[in-house]
Amino acid sequence: MNSYKILLISFLLFCSGVFFSNNKDSAALARIHEHILIKGQSYDNLEELCKNIGHRITASPASYEAIEWGKQKLEELKLDSVWLQPITVPHWVRGDIERLDFSSKSTPLHISHCTALGGSVGTDGNVISGQVIEVKDWDELDQIDRKAIEGKVVFFNQPMNPALINTFRAYGGCAGYRVYGSIKAAEKGASAVIIRSLTLKNDENPHTGMMKYVDSIPKIPGVAISSKDAYTLSEMIKDDPKTSVKLKLSCQTLPDTISYNVIGEIKGTEKPEEVILVGGHLDSWDIGEGAHDDGAGVVQSLETIRTFQMLQIKPKHTIRCVLYMNEENGNMGGKGYAKYVKEYNEKHLLALETDRGGFSPRGFSIDGTDEQVKAIKSFQNLFDPYWIHLFQKGYGGVDIGPLKDGKVCLVGLVPDSQRYFDFHHAKSDVFENVNERELKLGAAAITSLIYLADRYW
Amino acid sequence: MNSYKILLISFLLFCSGVFFSNNKDSAALARIHEHILIKGQSYDNLEELCKNIGHRITASPASYEAIEWGKQKLEELKLDSVWLQPITVPHWVRGDIERLDFSSKSTPLHISHCTALGGSVGTDGNVISGQVIEVKDWDELDQIDRKAIEGKVVFFNQPMNPALINTFRAYGGCAGYRVYGSIKAAEKGASAVIIRSLTLKNDENPHTGMMKYVDSIPKIPGVAISSKDAYTLSEMIKDDPKTSVKLKLSCQTLPDTISYNVIGEIKGTEKPEEVILVGGHLDSWDIGEGAHDDGAGVVQSLETIRTFQMLQIKPKHTIRCVLYMNEENGNMGGKGYAKYVKEYNEKHLLALETDRGGFSPRGFSIDGTDEQVKAIKSFQNLFDPYWIHLFQKGYGGVDIGPLKDGKVCLVGLVPDSQRYFDFHHAKSDVFENVNERELKLGAAAITSLIYLADRYW
Repeated sequence: MNSYKILLISFLLFCSGVFFSNNKDSAALARIHEHILIKGQSYDNLEELCKNIGHRITASPASYEAIEWGKQKLEELKLDSVWLQPITVPHWVRGDIERLDFSSKSTPLHISHCTALGGSVGTDGNVISGQVIEVKDWDELDQIDRKAIEGKVVFFNQPMNPALINTFRAYGGCAGYRVYGSIKAAEKGASAVIIRSLTLKNDENPHTGMMKYVDSIPKIPGVAISSKDAYTLSEMIKDDPKTSVKLKLSCQTLPDTISYNVIGEIKGTEKPEEVILVGGHLDSWDIGEGAHDDGAGVVQSLETIRTFQMLQIKPKHTIRCVLYMNEENGNMGGKGYAKYVKEYNEKHLLALETDRGGFSPRGFSIDGTDEQVKAIKSFQNLFDPYWIHLFQKGYGGVDIGPLKDGKVCLVGLVPDSQRYFDFHHAKSDVFENVNERELKLGAAAITSLIYLADRYW
Repeated sequence: MNSYKILLISFLLFCSGVFFSNNKDSAALARIHEHILIKGQSYDNLEELCKNIGHRITASPASYEAIEWGKQKLEELKLDSVWLQPITVPHWVRGDIERLDFSSKSTPLHISHCTALGGSVGTDGNVISGQVIEVKDWDELDQIDRKAIEGKVVFFNQPMNPALINTFRAYGGCAGYRVYGSIKAAEKGASAVIIRSLTLKNDENPHTGMMKYVDSIPKIPGVAISSKDAYTLSEMIKDDPKTSVKLKLSCQTLPDTISYNVIGEIKGTEKPEEVILVGGHLDSWDIGEGAHDDGAGVVQSLETIRTFQMLQIKPKHTIRCVLYMNEENGNMGGKGYAKYVKEYNEKHLLALETDRGGFSPRGFSIDGTDEQVKAIKSFQNLFDPYWIHLFQKGYGGVDIGPLKDGKVCLVGLVPDSQRYFDFHHAKSDVFENVNERELKLGAAAITSLIYLADRYW
């Protein structure tokens, strides 16, 4: 019988035992929630991270400050081990100049609210100018002759679908234009790409985010404009099809460098060689303060391991907190961590990521075997008093993704998603836009799940 | 067989039929959600109400503007009837002066962030000054001799319990000090009462709200201070037990006057004499903009009846939208409406109130017979795609409360409650603190329930 069959049987035993254990578990979850809501540090920690350090894109000076801060936070908890895992990371910098002007016959100059997309090339001190070709989607781009695009600027104007209840689905329906728009437009000879920001809010905040290049196709700059400017630009084009833009960006990619994942753990009392992981990512985009994305996940993960210590919960398995670096533009932290796990032949039972904002927790998305999903669903009734109802098979998260091997169970915390894309990758992602109770309830939810997984797996 | 037994049998028939109807109902709910999320007017209406009219305490000029505005909104929908129901209402005014200073040996002057409690007497142009006696609760007050309180100011410093998940329960644990604190303190000879604001947020916003007097006990002024000032005052008292306050309030109660509930309805095609009601309250406290409380409920209720019209849903029963007046300080709108219903011998099947903020909808609180609760719970699976999971027996709402007669089913929309008391009755309750999607999802949730109740009841 292999260890996974043993795990399966454990699940079944668990299911029969849960009825008798429920009272004890309910009391434990109540204790965890009470501790985090009354004595928790997550909100104070988030304020420190956002206000003392601020945004912290990989390889920036602030990112190294954040690493030191995270390490110190873990060290203060007197864990069994705290260490930094070195990883090779990309180093993209925005620079000082970022300007996109629109011009039509009736509007000689409209200065937009814009942001370079992460990873974009700059304009090498020059100004790129050209007529704007607006398209809604790939199909519309495909239908335009290469000649009509050459030397021009393609504008992907695809709004997120407000009718979708889970806003991450609406995001998924548009993110491709941000990530691959420059490749597809450059294939047709475009000189730059503009995308409508990925948000459901009608405002003046541009939202950045990762874009990609391939070596075989010329690298052209990519920039996002606010939803209001996308509307304005589209109206200008309707009025004057010759509407043009001028674009200047000083961003550039520097040589790869070294950064770190920050890791701390409590050794398991019974199965120290089996790891249950909780994590978020320490890096953020270089605008705003990375409060929801993913300062919230960082301080919630810290809160989980802190709560084990403060409540003197001695876990059976090793509980490890990983503050990943470089989720936003390369995921070298996630990949590097998975490589380390493989090299050292470590066994991970469960890895939980919190990277969907510090909003009221609604449930968990579980990327695991049917048995694992069932095992986690069996905890559901324990979460009823906390208004946490969603226990469904689904995606775990970017950082933990590379751990996927058919054995480890990956879990993502699912908070309420309605406000996330108001702030995501924008200057509005600041501490003030995180509610203390929502943040703490998310921390309590993940701590509760980690507690139960440790107890029954 | 009386009509309620018939209703009971209808429920049972419904339960057997729901399986076959599910697809059609799912499609209807999807259509309602899509319409409200994409073409809905609730957010624009809220902006008008908050920004063009602003706060609107009963009998204020703004409250009459709000009545006109509500009537016009209903009239624009070409309903079968729109009317104003006159009601006699109290008329309390805050006036210009509202000042509370603390003073101790080490802090000669601390000017507090304060607000008179609604209904409070003023200080008649005088300044009330006196030593502060801090108590946590009724027990502490009871244990103090009358002599030690006479002529002094009682400070009820009872924070809301942050460990409670449903913040309304935490509110319920403290609201008594605001409502009855003046009576209890005056019984012991106090000259005024200060309460710690009912909020879970640590900030400088004082929160007002209703207080009561009884004729047999002297009426002394009541004032709320911010949570930060409550902390400051308590620390000052620890440092110097002789800490005193000076209080000046210009508020007063004017003679009762006339105001109105605003009512519009679509006549039912099959049972026009049976009413399904949806409503919120048009009045607000006189600080902030009454955005969550209860502008949100007003525009959501309008959105329900608007959606029936826009989607050309012909209800079997009469669907009535009631925008109540005077929920905050007397509930004369709710009482007056119930009186009217009784006088005209109208039959109400269901009355749904939305008055807990414009946050992500989580479910419904049902004040009805077991059969009614069961009937509404039978809709639950239809709400799964909208992440609405709570269907439980509980309180309906203040406005609809007087309708309770053992027959009508009262329902309250239950939104996520974590942020509500950040804004409730405070100057921070403004349009900017309402999220468009959360507001609209609440409107879609109540419209869906009203749709289903009309179809199956």
